[in-house]
Amino acid sequence: MPSVTKNAPSANGTHSNGAATTGPNAKIQITGKATPSKLQAHKMVFYFGKTRVDGEMSQKLLLGGKGANLADMCSIGLPVPPGFTITTETCAAYYRAGQRLPVGLMNEVHKYVNMLEKETGKKFGSPDNPMLVSVRSGAAVSMPGMMDTILNLGLTDQAVEGLAVKTKNKRFAYDAYRRLINMFGDVVMGVGHHKFEDAFKHIKAKYKAATDNDVPTEGIVELCELYKEVFRKHVGEVFPQNPFKQLELAIEAVFKSWNGDRAISYRRIQGISGLLGTAVNVQVMAFGNMGDDSGTGVGFTRNPATGDNKFYGDFLINAQGEDVVAGIRSPKLIDEMPKWNKKVYDELQKIKTKLEKHYKDMQDIEFTIEQGKLYMLQTRTGKRTGAAAIKIACDMVKDRLITEKEALVRIPAGDLTQLLLPMFDPTKRKLAVVLTRGIAASPGAAVGKLSFTASDAVERKSKGEKVILVREETSPEDVEGMHSATGILTSTGGRASHAAVVAVGWGKPCVVGAGEMLIDAKAGTCKMGGRTLTREDTISIDGSTGEVMVLAGAAGASAGGGGIPTIEPEKLSGDFATIMRWSDKYRTLDIRTNADTPADARKGRDFGAAGIGLCRTEHMFFEGDRIRAMREMILAGDEASRRKALEKLLPYQRDDFVGIFTAMKGLPVTVRLIDPPLHEFVPHEEKQQAELAKKMGMTLEKVQQRIAQLHEANPMLGHRGCRLCITYPEILEMQVRAIVEATLDCVANGIRAMPEIMIPLVGTVKEFEVLKAQTLATIDAVKKEKGWQKRIDIPIGTMIEVPRACVTADEIAAGGAEFFSFGTNDLTQMTYGFSRDDIGTFLPDYLHKEILAGDPFVSLDTTGVGALVEMGVAKGRSVNDKLKIGICGEHGGDPKSVHFFHKAGMDYVSCSPFRVPIARLAAAQAAIMHAV
Amino acid sequence: MPSVTKNAPSANGTHSNGAATTGPNAKIQITGKATPSKLQAHKMVFYFGKTRVDGEMSQKLLLGGKGANLADMCSIGLPVPPGFTITTETCAAYYRAGQRLPVGLMNEVHKYVNMLEKETGKKFGSPDNPMLVSVRSGAAVSMPGMMDTILNLGLTDQAVEGLAVKTKNKRFAYDAYRRLINMFGDVVMGVGHHKFEDAFKHIKAKYKAATDNDVPTEGIVELCELYKEVFRKHVGEVFPQNPFKQLELAIEAVFKSWNGDRAISYRRIQGISGLLGTAVNVQVMAFGNMGDDSGTGVGFTRNPATGDNKFYGDFLINAQGEDVVAGIRSPKLIDEMPKWNKKVYDELQKIKTKLEKHYKDMQDIEFTIEQGKLYMLQTRTGKRTGAAAIKIACDMVKDRLITEKEALVRIPAGDLTQLLLPMFDPTKRKLAVVLTRGIAASPGAAVGKLSFTASDAVERKSKGEKVILVREETSPEDVEGMHSATGILTSTGGRASHAAVVAVGWGKPCVVGAGEMLIDAKAGTCKMGGRTLTREDTISIDGSTGEVMVLAGAAGASAGGGGIPTIEPEKLSGDFATIMRWSDKYRTLDIRTNADTPADARKGRDFGAAGIGLCRTEHMFFEGDRIRAMREMILAGDEASRRKALEKLLPYQRDDFVGIFTAMKGLPVTVRLIDPPLHEFVPHEEKQQAELAKKMGMTLEKVQQRIAQLHEANPMLGHRGCRLCITYPEILEMQVRAIVEATLDCVANGIRAMPEIMIPLVGTVKEFEVLKAQTLATIDAVKKEKGWQKRIDIPIGTMIEVPRACVTADEIAAGGAEFFSFGTNDLTQMTYGFSRDDIGTFLPDYLHKEILAGDPFVSLDTTGVGALVEMGVAKGRSVNDKLKIGICGEHGGDPKSVHFFHKAGMDYVSCSPFRVPIARLAAAQAAIMHAV
Repeated sequence: MPSVTKNAPSANGTHSNGAATTGPNAKIQITGKATPSKLQAHKMVFYFGKTRVDGEMSQKLLLGGKGANLADMCSIGLPVPPGFTITTETCAAYYRAGQRLPVGLMNEVHKYVNMLEKETGKKFGSPDNPMLVSVRSGAAVSMPGMMDTILNLGLTDQAVEGLAVKTKNKRFAYDAYRRLINMFGDVVMGVGHHKFEDAFKHIKAKYKAATDNDVPTEGIVELCELYKEVFRKHVGEVFPQNPFKQLELAIEAVFKSWNGDRAISYRRIQGISGLLGTAVNVQVMAFGNMGDDSGTGVGFTRNPATGDNKFYGDFLINAQGEDVVAGIRSPKLIDEMPKWNKKVYDELQKIKTKLEKHYKDMQDIEFTIEQGKLYMLQTRTGKRTGAAAIKIACDMVKDRLITEKEALVRIPAGDLTQLLLPMFDPTKRKLAVVLTRGIAASPGAAVGKLSFTASDAVERKSKGEKVILVREETSPEDVEGMHSATGILTSTGGRASHAAVVAVGWGKPCVVGAGEMLIDAKAGTCKMGGRTLTREDTISIDGSTGEVMVLAGAAGASAGGGGIPTIEPEKLSGDFATIMRWSDKYRTLDIRTNADTPADARKGRDFGAAGIGLCRTEHMFFEGDRIRAMREMILAGDEASRRKALEKLLPYQRDDFVGIFTAMKGLPVTVRLIDPPLHEFVPHEEKQQAELAKKMGMTLEKVQQRIAQLHEANPMLGHRGCRLCITYPEILEMQVRAIVEATLDCVANGIRAMPEIMIPLVGTVKEFEVLKAQTLATIDAVKKEKGWQKRIDIPIGTMIEVPRACVTADEIAAGGAEFFSFGTNDLTQMTYGFSRDDIGTFLPDYLHKEILAGDPFVSLDTTGVGALVEMGVAKGRSVNDKLKIGICGEHGGDPKSVHFFHKAGMDYVSCSPFRVPIARLAAAQAAIMHAV
Repeated sequence: MPSVTKNAPSANGTHSNGAATTGPNAKIQITGKATPSKLQAHKMVFYFGKTRVDGEMSQKLLLGGKGANLADMCSIGLPVPPGFTITTETCAAYYRAGQRLPVGLMNEVHKYVNMLEKETGKKFGSPDNPMLVSVRSGAAVSMPGMMDTILNLGLTDQAVEGLAVKTKNKRFAYDAYRRLINMFGDVVMGVGHHKFEDAFKHIKAKYKAATDNDVPTEGIVELCELYKEVFRKHVGEVFPQNPFKQLELAIEAVFKSWNGDRAISYRRIQGISGLLGTAVNVQVMAFGNMGDDSGTGVGFTRNPATGDNKFYGDFLINAQGEDVVAGIRSPKLIDEMPKWNKKVYDELQKIKTKLEKHYKDMQDIEFTIEQGKLYMLQTRTGKRTGAAAIKIACDMVKDRLITEKEALVRIPAGDLTQLLLPMFDPTKRKLAVVLTRGIAASPGAAVGKLSFTASDAVERKSKGEKVILVREETSPEDVEGMHSATGILTSTGGRASHAAVVAVGWGKPCVVGAGEMLIDAKAGTCKMGGRTLTREDTISIDGSTGEVMVLAGAAGASAGGGGIPTIEPEKLSGDFATIMRWSDKYRTLDIRTNADTPADARKGRDFGAAGIGLCRTEHMFFEGDRIRAMREMILAGDEASRRKALEKLLPYQRDDFVGIFTAMKGLPVTVRLIDPPLHEFVPHEEKQQAELAKKMGMTLEKVQQRIAQLHEANPMLGHRGCRLCITYPEILEMQVRAIVEATLDCVANGIRAMPEIMIPLVGTVKEFEVLKAQTLATIDAVKKEKGWQKRIDIPIGTMIEVPRACVTADEIAAGGAEFFSFGTNDLTQMTYGFSRDDIGTFLPDYLHKEILAGDPFVSLDTTGVGALVEMGVAKGRSVNDKLKIGICGEHGGDPKSVHFFHKAGMDYVSCSPFRVPIARLAAAQAAIMHAV
């Protein structure tokens, strides 16, 4: 992030700072694994302060993240309370020595404390003007489970009196002391925290104090005595009155915490290795609660919600940092600060500029004013909304603080979602009750009444009602109802379940796998969060968090709650458009969209898609009369009857393609031939089966028999994909005919249709060869029939989605596949052996126990599935180095996965329309970050 | 197969035969792809006969299979009708020249015909003593679709008269002539066969002849005239009266047939490439129908059914080869030949010895005696039964004809099945009616009455009845019923369906996927082959052929048929034992068995298994009280109740292990932890659910709710395998406890138990690490409880059965897996995306259309699944080169797959007890054939 400043040390371990270069330089001998090649002498302690800075940002491994950061802040001249960092190498030496502090370390510490005394003019342990320090751990990567912080170290029975005099605040001084004894006893010496709590309760009772703050000064003084007694009793020694003894014990406690159970298990689970140990940061305390000339605050160098280039934050007078976070007192806005202390305010403004110039990004800062003097405690890159990220990036480019590439790289691509979908009004949302939580499957906010069947949803939509479709799971039969609903909520399934995939495709909010919810569709009720809701109740679902909510208070009789008001998103314009323009300039991946309808196609195109990467044809079979013809085809007993039914479907399918080709004119449209198993198209309830039987002039028994025959134990691994066209070539013929006829229609009308035909689920080259031959034959037949003379060029390719296709991708390329499109949903299912519909039963456990880092259906598993993808790309290109390769499936809209696909050498990714902008940005980031 | 004999030519293309080396030597220039490096001169024609042999067995690529064979037979001095072979290179030259016979070819042919005339003393086209020849195609590999045979070539209007005089049989001569015209017209000139048929019908009508044989000589003479007229009319030229013209046209027709549609598509489908073309074999005719001193016969040099070392065959006097095959006349046994012609019989006996000495194997021969002179027409390795294969191999080793290694390599390992399972009595089987055919899933013959439910099968078995369990499909609930049945028949599923896998494990005959069968279990009927069978009817199923049969005649009222009598197999003794001993001597792979019960364990051990490679623990949960405790565990609402139920299961499971460890004492037993999804253990019919609810004191609704929760869309990819132990660690604890307690019990009683614990379905190393840690903790806990001081060593490993495990096998090995066992059933399912339960719907089409060469659940797909196996082995060993690697699953008993596993560097294969001998032999063959 930040670059090296002028005064920073020039090399590891030695320093060349302008000031005070004659510091102590005792060395320790390290002979362990960390330095295998030769014996080396290492500096154990690094100073940071106004007078001198030993370390630099790049020395994170040696100084830990926090230590390097403090050094960096000092090196640009920020007013940071001075301190020093004991290196991670010293921690390693501690362990090599059998858990003994290295010889000479405490001598060094003494010398550095002296330096601090010189810089602050205070004295460690002094009864007049005592210097207090904090001690903190800090490894190279953030690591829960290690010792956190000890504050106020250096206070003793003598020093506390000095502090009381110096601050003219006895209560403050003794309060600091009792905090030290408590923290030190608990964290360093292992005295249970509750032992101190008991003593505090005793004092509060004695002084009849309701809260800690009500205890008078004498009570706090008395409390310190009690605490010291607790300490003595449980430790077996008195609380150390030598501040250096305190420091020594604290340093050792930090080192020990490196190998605490929690830290070890954290490193194991996160796969963190190669670190030397933890550093120890000793820093002079600054107090914001020393009176009305003191204070503390937090802020952002720009507005993190909007991105406005204006200092944004809060401060509290006479308070500690914790008080701001605790939210007990209402802080003031930074804008009010000049009235209180103009000098500090101006200094903060200067620091804002300095920080942004140095870090080249908006910063999140913490600061303290001790008796009128400003100290910076922390600065880090500030979190921000998607909108702010975009505005800040654009503004900083305008101000020439950063380049376009830098601007692009720092915008979290996934956050763009916020700009594209409605969100709940945050002020109103606070009033909502969360009834249950499911898996956040498709982002966005949706509000509506409960609807338990697809037909009900369709009917109520037509009457203008807003409904949320609530089901155990959805199937293609429900598609029309899903489309009619404003949002979808299911009790089973994961992020790749039918409901989730369809919803993501439409950009419709969806929560799945809300397993605590009990639906009784017959009764028209649904239990969750202890309430029973009916179809007259309104719920709000947040597809970005998985929450299912009702507005409290506004309840009806049974359950209650109206909907939470939503805020509509901004348009793709202004800074957003700028970011997209820059993205397109730098990315090398093409971005296509997945779209099955002209409306979706247009949406994707509006969002910048360069074509359709996946046009599923089966969704087209569900509407109105089509499903009837489809079912006729499925129930047909022989090829002739199947062909008759398919003839009825042909005009519908052709018209669909004309619509899509027209919407995408001049851009390629990859049409996937039928994929799902046939049983997805037939009704599973007896009533509907009886209707169907009547319509088709068959007996119910016959219909049920055929449907039973279609039943599969594992449909995902069953008779689907290209396997259908192998057994029923007439389906392929109808679909290819529809594509070709639509193409010729379009071209005849001056519309440049550019279809590509994609054969799904190919596992062996022979499947592809047989179906390609049949496809070509059908294309020729249609051309001949229509007397078409001109050349039409329809590439024929395949999805690579079963592991065997990756392993034999060279054969499939040699068999004449003109493009590959990786179907990473199915590939993930089969590589892991995870059914996307059933993963809900164990995924939560897997995430909780950190067996999986994340849902592999959201972000591609690069180690396993990714290795197969890379194999497929390499093998395919080994035969045909011009082979066009892309991916379709929702990983195409996941930024992390897009990076992987870029590196894997793909030509394009394809994702749902709403994720196209995300993919454009992610692709640019990948190109910039992985540029050779 | 055969080795080169003394007089055989020494090198490609040139010859050094003892006789007549001054043959013509015209060369053709070949410059095409076939000889890319330089221009070479090639000999176009190779002679074979008594006087000289140009070719040799090794020249198959140049001479074709047939040509090389004929040369070989001649080279060992067999009385073969002489002839010559035009090379495959000449065919290639024909195509390079734009389908023109190479310059000089016909000159060559002339010269070689002269040579034949010299050797036979006959003359081509002669009116006195005409020499007739046959013309046959013959590529390096057998290839349907090419031109077959033209006989009697060389007959003309003149020559036919000569033949009539010479043979003193005018009818014979003209019959030969009319056959030539017909064949030549049809095959060479493309005149439809039916045109000749029409003419024949006309003649038969004219002479009032019922059959061809009733037509008198004058009719045949007249027929020749009619045929010539048909020829002239449709070809536009008269039938060629120049025998060399006939020969030239026939040769060209053979060449042309190389690129016929059928031949091209055959080569494409079979993946045959790299061949030059077809050879043409021109051979002098020998006639067995020239009178009572002539004859024809077929035979085996040893008895192909028993292996007895005695000439075995049939012959017919005054007949052509076709007559033997047609089976119109009853042939005589070879034993009767001395009475007819002692000289020929003695010569055949000598030839038997010569052939076996040369080919070192039992031969299947065809011969003809022309006017007292014996001609050998063909010899090839004879097909034989498993028993004969073993006896012949052992006998030949005893006689020092072949080595042990040679003996082993030539026994088809799969044929050993015949020796291990009951077979139908072949004489009685002829009387059976085949009602339907399914997939042959588990070999052997079974007879019994139909039983439609598992409980019915159990009940009737207990009454001593023999039943065949007839179901649409089976599930683990049916296991007891399956065990009670003598055989299993299902209407769905493939070779890896539940029914098939369980049946193979038990060596129980099983036919699956008999899709035409309609079962109505409620009515207790089953329709197939146009009959309706009830539970009182007896059927016979052949698990080796997939046939479902009833005995005709012995029918009852509705359908009928008693069972076909069966013959019990021989024991593993005598020659069989010898073969096994030799196998063990040469193989390097260990063979283990899959066994879940002490009985199976003993069976596997008796068959020579060196341990158990797969002990499934879940089958143990089905009997009696166990299933109740299992269901209690599954229906339990919390961990405490689950633990209570598991405690009930513990003693059962421990006793099972004691039994198995005792049966296998001193040998390793790999125990797989629970694998199937929990819903396999709960009842799916309401009646049983109600019973269960009552027993458990729960409401039916509650039971159904829990069962519904367990339902999965794709159970194969669902909550199973190690995923169960991740979510329910208490199941693993109980199982590991049972294993350890059983081990300590055994060891305390002096029984050397050697368990290995196998964690199934691992897809990521973290699953393995978490469960291994838990396993180790449980082992330690049990040891501590029991006060066990001594070391016990229980290796902990994993199944590699999801593709991701192959891809990340290095990580899994690094995570501490002490062994890998490839589960190739599941790996095949996920690599192809084929559900073993659903493949039945499309596999027949896939096999029929040659998209798959075979069922990948029977013989491992080495290209796809095998590549992942190789990757898994390589990655695993890259981390731990001592890693023990095996495979379990039925591929372990498939000879072809065993070869692959040997090459892949595995340590062992494990298969069902009945396939252990097969695996032992196959492993030896693999070691011998792939020895470096």
